[in-house]
Amino acid sequence: MIKKLKMGMVGGGVGAFIGDVHRKAAAIDGLIELTAGAFSSSAEKSKRSGEELGLDPSRVYGSYEEMILAEKALPEGERIDFVSIVTPNHMHFGPSKLALEHGFPVVCDKPVTFSTAEAYELKAVIERSGLLFALTHNYTGYPMVKQARAMVKNGELGKIRKVVAQYHQGWLATKLEDSEQKQASWRTDPARSGKAGAFGDIGTHAENLLEYITDLKITALCADLTAFVPGRRLDDDGHVLLRLEHGAKGAMSISQIAVGEENNLKIQVYGEKAGLEWAQMHPNSLTVRHLDGHMQNYRTGVGALHPESAAHTRIPAGHPEGYLEAFANIYRNFAKCLLAQKNNQEVDPIYTDFPTVDDGIRGMEFIDAVVDSSAKQGWVKL
Amino acid sequence: MIKKLKMGMVGGGVGAFIGDVHRKAAAIDGLIELTAGAFSSSAEKSKRSGEELGLDPSRVYGSYEEMILAEKALPEGERIDFVSIVTPNHMHFGPSKLALEHGFPVVCDKPVTFSTAEAYELKAVIERSGLLFALTHNYTGYPMVKQARAMVKNGELGKIRKVVAQYHQGWLATKLEDSEQKQASWRTDPARSGKAGAFGDIGTHAENLLEYITDLKITALCADLTAFVPGRRLDDDGHVLLRLEHGAKGAMSISQIAVGEENNLKIQVYGEKAGLEWAQMHPNSLTVRHLDGHMQNYRTGVGALHPESAAHTRIPAGHPEGYLEAFANIYRNFAKCLLAQKNNQEVDPIYTDFPTVDDGIRGMEFIDAVVDSSAKQGWVKL
Amino acid sequence: MIKKLKMGMVGGGVGAFIGDVHRKAAAIDGLIELTAGAFSSSAEKSKRSGEELGLDPSRVYGSYEEMILAEKALPEGERIDFVSIVTPNHMHFGPSKLALEHGFPVVCDKPVTFSTAEAYELKAVIERSGLLFALTHNYTGYPMVKQARAMVKNGELGKIRKVVAQYHQGWLATKLEDSEQKQASWRTDPARSGKAGAFGDIGTHAENLLEYITDLKITALCADLTAFVPGRRLDDDGHVLLRLEHGAKGAMSISQIAVGEENNLKIQVYGEKAGLEWAQMHPNSLTVRHLDGHMQNYRTGVGALHPESAAHTRIPAGHPEGYLEAFANIYRNFAKCLLAQKNNQEVDPIYTDFPTVDDGIRGMEFIDAVVDSSAKQGWVKL
Amino acid sequence: MIKKLKMGMVGGGVGAFIGDVHRKAAAIDGLIELTAGAFSSSAEKSKRSGEELGLDPSRVYGSYEEMILAEKALPEGERIDFVSIVTPNHMHFGPSKLALEHGFPVVCDKPVTFSTAEAYELKAVIERSGLLFALTHNYTGYPMVKQARAMVKNGELGKIRKVVAQYHQGWLATKLEDSEQKQASWRTDPARSGKAGAFGDIGTHAENLLEYITDLKITALCADLTAFVPGRRLDDDGHVLLRLEHGAKGAMSISQIAVGEENNLKIQVYGEKAGLEWAQMHPNSLTVRHLDGHMQNYRTGVGALHPESAAHTRIPAGHPEGYLEAFANIYRNFAKCLLAQKNNQEVDPIYTDFPTVDDGIRGMEFIDAVVDSSAKQGWVKL
Repeated sequence: MIKKLKMGMVGGGVGAFIGDVHRKAAAIDGLIELTAGAFSSSAEKSKRSGEELGLDPSRVYGSYEEMILAEKALPEGERIDFVSIVTPNHMHFGPSKLALEHGFPVVCDKPVTFSTAEAYELKAVIERSGLLFALTHNYTGYPMVKQARAMVKNGELGKIRKVVAQYHQGWLATKLEDSEQKQASWRTDPARSGKAGAFGDIGTHAENLLEYITDLKITALCADLTAFVPGRRLDDDGHVLLRLEHGAKGAMSISQIAVGEENNLKIQVYGEKAGLEWAQMHPNSLTVRHLDGHMQNYRTGVGALHPESAAHTRIPAGHPEGYLEAFANIYRNFAKCLLAQKNNQEVDPIYTDFPTVDDGIRGMEFIDAVVDSSAKQGWVKL
Repeated sequence: MIKKLKMGMVGGGVGAFIGDVHRKAAAIDGLIELTAGAFSSSAEKSKRSGEELGLDPSRVYGSYEEMILAEKALPEGERIDFVSIVTPNHMHFGPSKLALEHGFPVVCDKPVTFSTAEAYELKAVIERSGLLFALTHNYTGYPMVKQARAMVKNGELGKIRKVVAQYHQGWLATKLEDSEQKQASWRTDPARSGKAGAFGDIGTHAENLLEYITDLKITALCADLTAFVPGRRLDDDGHVLLRLEHGAKGAMSISQIAVGEENNLKIQVYGEKAGLEWAQMHPNSLTVRHLDGHMQNYRTGVGALHPESAAHTRIPAGHPEGYLEAFANIYRNFAKCLLAQKNNQEVDPIYTDFPTVDDGIRGMEFIDAVVDSSAKQGWVKL
Repeated sequence: MIKKLKMGMVGGGVGAFIGDVHRKAAAIDGLIELTAGAFSSSAEKSKRSGEELGLDPSRVYGSYEEMILAEKALPEGERIDFVSIVTPNHMHFGPSKLALEHGFPVVCDKPVTFSTAEAYELKAVIERSGLLFALTHNYTGYPMVKQARAMVKNGELGKIRKVVAQYHQGWLATKLEDSEQKQASWRTDPARSGKAGAFGDIGTHAENLLEYITDLKITALCADLTAFVPGRRLDDDGHVLLRLEHGAKGAMSISQIAVGEENNLKIQVYGEKAGLEWAQMHPNSLTVRHLDGHMQNYRTGVGALHPESAAHTRIPAGHPEGYLEAFANIYRNFAKCLLAQKNNQEVDPIYTDFPTVDDGIRGMEFIDAVVDSSAKQGWVKL
Repeated sequence: MIKKLKMGMVGGGVGAFIGDVHRKAAAIDGLIELTAGAFSSSAEKSKRSGEELGLDPSRVYGSYEEMILAEKALPEGERIDFVSIVTPNHMHFGPSKLALEHGFPVVCDKPVTFSTAEAYELKAVIERSGLLFALTHNYTGYPMVKQARAMVKNGELGKIRKVVAQYHQGWLATKLEDSEQKQASWRTDPARSGKAGAFGDIGTHAENLLEYITDLKITALCADLTAFVPGRRLDDDGHVLLRLEHGAKGAMSISQIAVGEENNLKIQVYGEKAGLEWAQMHPNSLTVRHLDGHMQNYRTGVGALHPESAAHTRIPAGHPEGYLEAFANIYRNFAKCLLAQKNNQEVDPIYTDFPTVDDGIRGMEFIDAVVDSSAKQGWVKL
C-alpha cells in the first residue's frame, strides 16, 4: 500500500514566498515528499534551487515541459505522483494543462489562471483527464472556517441576510515594484497578474471565503477600484457592494495600501438567528452571537465542534495552529484522496473538501465583474 | 460668578432611553442641574416624571411651549439657562426653534431635524438668535476619537486615502416594533423617524465620526439599503461606497439586524504614512500602525497625547471611561462655553469642540443621498 | 416623599483624585446633591474648593468637626443627609465616628481606617448608631462582577478550587513621592497610609474582589513584599500564596511598580465545573469556560444575566459603562437604602448590596497578615 | 554537501501526541527526514507505526537498543544522523545515553530525565561524547519570545524587578487517568512521570521561559502544591513565590485543573524602564509598555525586530505561525548546527540557540525545589 506521494514542483525557486509555503505545507503531514522540480524558467536557477533543497540532481529540470515529459518516462512508483504549480498567474494554465494531459494530478496556486477563458478551458481539460485538481484557496483550510461553514449549513444561523468581508494588507502602500521586490513586481504587472491587482491577489480569497462559509453565490456587485500609488497600473484598493443568492446582501473592502496592516482577512456573517465573526490573524477563535444574547467563542479543537472542523486539527487545543497548518489541510486532503485512488480505497468524504477548478472559475468571474463594474461605475451581474 | 447652569428638558419621560442618558451625562461634571421639564406630550405623564426626578412641581410642564413661555417669564437667575431636547426626530425642530426664539440656548439630540429643509431653517434661526446650539453626536466625545482627529490634522497619518466605517447593532433583527417597545416603534416609523431608519439613527453617527476624524467631506456615494424584516417600512441595513474630498475613498456598513451585535461602531482610517483603528466598544484604545511597522496602542490618559484628547479625560488611566463620559463631554463643553458667556469670560478654545447644526445638516444631506442613491441604484453627489 | 439626598463631603478639595470621583459617582443617578463640605484641613482651601464647586458659602466649613456640628444644628430637610469621607487613610476614623455619633450615615473611602484596632472600634460605633455605613470598594460595583458572584453562588462553577488575582499599576515605578504629587506623597508615607503601601491601596481591592466573587474567606497566607524603589518606606510590590475556606487555594500579585500598567486588576476563578475570568480594564465582558469546552462571553446588559447583575446596569448593551458607573452603584444603592429609610419604605434587597465595615475589617486583617507574613517569611493564619 | 538529516525516533507510536508533534516539527523545514524508529516497547506496535508512517520496514525496530546498534552498523550516509526521543519521562535517560555513547546526537523531549541525579549523569555523558544534545523546551522557539529575550538583554527594559508567569490547563480537572487516556495515565503516575505532576509537565516550561527571557536564575522559592482531584498522586496545581538573581522577585501559577483553559502560558516581565507581556495562545504579539506611557505592540515579522527574532520567522507577517513552527525552530537550529558539523562549515551563531541539557538540569532542580518547599511549607534555596 502506498503511504507517501512524490511531488514535482513548477516554480518556487529558493527565495520565492509561495513556493516555500507550498513545500512546508506539503511536508507537515508526512504524506508527501518533494522529489522533482522545475523551479525556474532559468535552468541554472532551477538547478541551484534543487541543490539547495537537497534533491537528486537528475530530478531537477530546466522547464516544466522537460519535467513532465521526463517524469512521465520514469517507471511508475519512481515517477512523481502529482505536480504542484506555484508560478505567477500567467504561468498557471500551461503547466496545469500539460501535467493533466500526461496523467499527473495537479495542485495549483490561485487565481486558477490568467484569464476567465483559460479557466473554462482548464476545466474542460480536467474533466477529460478525470484527474484530481486542487486550488490552494488556503484560508478555507482553517478549522474555524470549516466550523463556520458547517454551522451555516446546519441552519444554526438561520437564513443568511448579510455578509461583510475585509482583506487589508499594507505592503504595497509605496511603489515597492520599483525596488527589486519580485512579488511586488509581478503582482502589479498586468502582463503577469491579469486584469486585477489587489482583487486578483487577495480579493479572490475574500470572495472564496465568503461563498464557502455562506454557500451562497454572489449574483451582482457594484465596485469602486483604485490604484492609489502613483504610476501603478493595477488596482491596489477597492470597495464592493454585493448581492447574493436568496436575497442576502454584503460588502467587501480590499486593500494592499492599508498602511500597517499585515494580512488582515476578516468576515462577519449575519443570519436571522445568529451572527458569526472570524479573523485570519486570530484563526483559532470563532465568535458566534445568538438572538437571545448568548455569545459563544468556539476554539480550534475545543468541545463539541462539527466533524468537518474537528477533522482539520492536528494538535491539542491551545497549541496554536496557523497559516501553514491551514494550507497543509489542502495538501493533506488532496493527498488522502490521491492515495485512496492509488490504493483502490474509499476516502472518508470529510477529506474530499478542498478547493477545485470551480472555485477558480468563480474567482475569475468575480475579477471580471469587479473590473467591469468599476469601469462603468455601476452594478453588474455575475 | 455663575458656576452651575439650570437645564429644562423637552421629552425624556422616565423610562425613555435617551432622556436618561442626557440627564446622567449632564450631571456628571457638576456644572448642570435639571431644573425644569416638559417630559411628555401628556401633561399627566410629564408630571409623574418630574415627581420621579425630584423636581419642584411648579417647574414641570405639560408641553414644551408652556415650559418655554413660563420659564421666560421667571426672573433671570431663577429661570432655566438652556433647553435640552430629547424627543423623537419629528419633534426636534419645533422646540428648538421656540427655545432659541425666546433666548434659550439648546442642546438637541440627533439627527438634528426630521427633514433637510427643517435643518436649513433651523440654522437660520440659530444664526438670528446668536445663541449656542449643540447636537449630541456623542461618539466624537471620546478622548481617543479626539486623539485620532488631532493626529490626522497634525499630518501624522499623511494624506488620507481610505476610510472604512461600520456600525452594527442587532436589536431590530426581529419585528420589535410589533411589541410595546417604544424605541422600536418610533424609529421604524417614517412619520416620526424621517425617510431613513438605521441610516437616520446610526448611519449618521458613522458619517459624523468619519468626517470628524478625517476632516474630509463625503462628496459622492453609492448605497444599497434594505429592510430585511418583513413589513418594516424603513431601512434596517445597508452598505455604501464613498468618495471623499482630495481623492480619498471609503465604505460603510450599517445595520440594526446584525444579530447579536450590541453597539459595534468601528472605524479604520489609512493615510500615506500610517493607519488607525478605533472601536466604540473598547473606546479607551486607539491603534496606530506606521509605514515602518511600528504599531502603537494609544490609551485614554496615558503618555503624550494631543491636548485635545487629554482635555476630555476625567479620571486616571486604566479606570475606564465609557459612553456616559463621552456624552458628558458635549454637555461639559457646551456648559463651559455658556458659563463663559454668562460670566463674560474667555473660554479655552479646547472646550469649544462640540457638534453643531452644521454637523446636523451634513447628517441630513447624507440621509437624503443614501436614500436617493439606493432608490436609483447608482452613484449620487452630495 | 424624599427623592434626593444632601451630601456633605470631608476632604476632596478641588484637584484631589478620589474626591472628584466620589462627587461624579454620586451625581450620575440624580439621587444625591453635594450640599456641604469640609474639603481641606485648611479653611482657606476648603472655601476655595466650595466656591469652585458652586456651593453656598455658608455650607462650606473649615473642618469636619465644624461641618458636622453646624449641619446637625440645621433643621431637618435642610441639613445634609449623610457624610462622604474621602480623606487619606489616617483621617477616616475621626470623621466617621463623629458623623455617626451625630446621626449622619457615612460613605467612606477604603481602607476603612488607619489600623485594625480603629476598624474594630468603628464597627462598634456603627452598631451603636444603627446607621448605614458604606465603604467604597468600588470594583465590586461592576455588573460583570455581580454576575460572577451570582454564578458562583448559584453553583454554576461547582466547588471552587483556585483563585488567581492580579492588580498591577506602574505609577510608582519611580520615586514620585519626591515630586509634588500629593497622592504619591501620602500613599507612601506610613504616618498617613498605615503599615502597608501597595497592599493597603490596591491589595485590599484584590482581596475584597476575590472574597466577594467566591464568597470564601482567606484563611492563611504567605507573602513576600518589596519596596523596589530605593528609599521608599512602604511596599510597592508583592506576591502572596493564599489558602481559602473549603480547601480552595490561590495567589495574588500586587504592584505599583509594574511599569506601564495602568490599573490592571484581573481575577481568575476555577471551580470543579467551570472557570471564569474578569479584567477591570475591559469590565463589560466576563468569560466563562465549562468542563465540556463551551466558552461563553457574558456582556454587560446582554441576554439572560442574573438579576443581581442586570440591576446594576444603566444603559443599553454596547454603550460601555466604566469606572464611574461602577463606583456610582455603591452610591446609588446606599442612596436607595437611605431614601427607603427616610420614606419608611421597603427597599428591594437587590439594592442592599454595597460594601460595609465588615469588608473594611477584612481588608485591615489582610493588611496585617501580609505584612506579618512577609516580615517573618512564612505562612500566617487570618 | 549534506543537505538533509536522517532521524531515528524512540517512542511516538502512531496516536501519541508528542511524537506526532516532533515528526511534524522536524518535517516543516525540509532538513530532516524520518528514516528509522523504535516507536513502542512492543515490537508489534512499533512495526505497525512504522508501516503507517511509510517507513522502510527494515528500519523499524522493536526496541531503542536494537535501533541504535543496528543503525550504528549501517554505513555512514545510510545510517541515521541523530536520535529523537519522545517517550515518557522515565524513558529519557536510557535511550539518550545509549545513543550518545554510540555516536548519535540527540533531540530529547522534556523534562530531560526522570530524576536530577540522572540529569547530572546525562550531562557527563554528553560532555564525554562531544555531541549535540537538544531539549525541546519549545516555547522559547517563538519569534516573539526571542524578541523579548533580546530586548531584556539589550537593556530596553532596564534592570528587571518582577516576573509573573502563569501556565494554566484544564484537561486534568477530572480523573482522566481512570479512562483509557494514555497521556493522563503516565503523567499522573510517579513511576513514569517523576516526583512532580503538573510542575514536571508544564511548570518546567514556565520556569524555562522565565529564565530564558530574563536571563536571571531563580535563587529561592516558596511553593504550595495541591492534588485537587481526589485520588491523584501527583500535584495538579500550585502556586510559587520566586526570588531571582539581582534582587528580582516573581510568582508562578501552574495548573492542569483550571477548567476550560487550553494551554494558557503567559508571562509578564517588569524592569525599571519598561514592562512586557506575552501569551502563548496569541504568540505573534508582544506588548511592551514604557515608563513614558508609550505602548508598543511588536508583531512576528513586522518592522525593526532584533535579528534573533527575525531569524526564527518563516512566512510574511500576518500569516500566523503557531506551535509547530516554534517547535520546528528547535529542530531547524539543531539541524543547521549538525549539518554544519558534518559539512565542516561554520554555523551562523543565531542558529545555535536551542535548549540544552543545562536547561534540563535547571528544570530538574526546580522540580526538586518546589516539591521540597511545598512539603515543608516554607522557602527553599535553589
